[in-house]
Amino acid sequence: MDAETRDRPHLGYFEGGEHRFAVRVYFEDTDLSGIVYHAGYLRFMERARSDMLRVAGIDQRGRMEAGEGAYAVADLAIKYRSPARLDDDLLVVSKVADVRAASCIIHQRVMREHDILTDASVTVALLNAAGRPVRQPREWVETFNRLKSGEE
Amino acid sequence: MDAETRDRPHLGYFEGGEHRFAVRVYFEDTDLSGIVYHAGYLRFMERARSDMLRVAGIDQRGRMEAGEGAYAVADLAIKYRSPARLDDDLLVVSKVADVRAASCIIHQRVMREHDILTDASVTVALLNAAGRPVRQPREWVETFNRLKSGEE
Amino acid sequence: MDAETRDRPHLGYFEGGEHRFAVRVYFEDTDLSGIVYHAGYLRFMERARSDMLRVAGIDQRGRMEAGEGAYAVADLAIKYRSPARLDDDLLVVSKVADVRAASCIIHQRVMREHDILTDASVTVALLNAAGRPVRQPREWVETFNRLKSGEE
Amino acid sequence: MDAETRDRPHLGYFEGGEHRFAVRVYFEDTDLSGIVYHAGYLRFMERARSDMLRVAGIDQRGRMEAGEGAYAVADLAIKYRSPARLDDDLLVVSKVADVRAASCIIHQRVMREHDILTDASVTVALLNAAGRPVRQPREWVETFNRLKSGEE
Repeated sequence: MDAETRDRPHLGYFEGGEHRFAVRVYFEDTDLSGIVYHAGYLRFMERARSDMLRVAGIDQRGRMEAGEGAYAVADLAIKYRSPARLDDDLLVVSKVADVRAASCIIHQRVMREHDILTDASVTVALLNAAGRPVRQPREWVETFNRLKSGEE
Repeated sequence: MDAETRDRPHLGYFEGGEHRFAVRVYFEDTDLSGIVYHAGYLRFMERARSDMLRVAGIDQRGRMEAGEGAYAVADLAIKYRSPARLDDDLLVVSKVADVRAASCIIHQRVMREHDILTDASVTVALLNAAGRPVRQPREWVETFNRLKSGEE
Repeated sequence: MDAETRDRPHLGYFEGGEHRFAVRVYFEDTDLSGIVYHAGYLRFMERARSDMLRVAGIDQRGRMEAGEGAYAVADLAIKYRSPARLDDDLLVVSKVADVRAASCIIHQRVMREHDILTDASVTVALLNAAGRPVRQPREWVETFNRLKSGEE
Repeated sequence: MDAETRDRPHLGYFEGGEHRFAVRVYFEDTDLSGIVYHAGYLRFMERARSDMLRVAGIDQRGRMEAGEGAYAVADLAIKYRSPARLDDDLLVVSKVADVRAASCIIHQRVMREHDILTDASVTVALLNAAGRPVRQPREWVETFNRLKSGEE
């Protein structure tokens, strides 16, 4: 790996219609029961969704800086199957499951090798600056539909 | 209020079979979209559940220090209806909805005055030190059943 | 305590020129070593500073919503003397130590009964929306000088 | 990059006696003022220190699991020079500055390209399970001294 690559944070990628994004567990993620705090997985999954937008070419930061709002989580259901621990290398696998006018449903699972530690269904809605749901730009809907159908 | 009371953190209480616990929104809870980060509500709800155990006389810390494990979230579904903002005074209202051998289901909603900002159903399971579900102590089950039936 | 008071989050107060603010340790604050994660104390101290501004009548949220920026930490030195643990009731004691045109220095210590767990010196600077230091409003400087001299 | 490498989280490395570790800014790291929350840099720097131990071959998790304690931050001074924002790619550069019997001093700076955003001096002390400082294992002291002198 060259120097430039080595100084770059981890970036995810698509494969087989799924987005794959690696996460490592640090002290900050654990609690005194010795395992990852349950809200920590939501942070891992949000990193993965942000990276998915980046790879898909959707410029959420630009939209925010233009004062036009951003995606927010509207609904989330998560099942905790097995705990992650300090120093674990995890993989968040994300798949666009449904695309609507103002929202998307994304299925995400956090894996450690072949084990599913948690899996979740997350509805994200595009909000305007006032916090109201708005239609997603047409090209974003097309992008999400492409991702849903397994094209990349 | 006397000095001793003024130097004590907020403590929740039961009323009408529901546990009520106040939370204030600080900078740490917000993100750059100006509202509370979605994982922040899970922290608020966990504070409320910990306080509920305290009021109900269930000594989770003692159990943990004896190396006998603790409650962990097994399943969580949450709906985000309206956002909380910096300096908001919130109230987490929690209700025991179901009691099983090794787990409980708790319904929680985060209110700002009369508005429900989020509501959630949370399954917590008692795990032993090895992370496996174990039967809850009989007196804890009795306590939860009392709370479920609306006694305090 | 009446119902309204019981549903209100903890609020701090001034006594003898010092601001006192209580904090309780929850799961979210700990890490797998069983004690409060070192960055957690910065969150506790920030809650106390926000509350200090509130008690002193300084409306930071109003200024932010007017697009005029906010206080940011410019410099921080903290000494960790003794660890806090789950369920501990802590008290953050804050004292304005110095007031300059665009910044203040605040001394803060986190106590558990008579033990100092951490103590810190924090410089906060008022930034405009572009992130540059700006002079604090004259009435805010007067307020901080009053607090510094031990008036309340 | 092959599949195995692409599914691996970012790992840091040593160069010229300094440890380099990349971090990307996500929503979770920001607050409503639009920049990284001040305690967030402590999390970034702790990830870098954990990775530095890993590269240096020091097995802190093994020690913890053997019930022999872990490193804890004893003292920290940090200067915030310029803010980081959403989607920024940062680099945490760490250098062992001093090695004592029971502690080390590590200098860390968070960079965005050629700009120093924050720099800090962090004293970490090895604690036993009871929370008391203990002498570091001789081979760890030797490792840190090698790192300090710029060998890798």
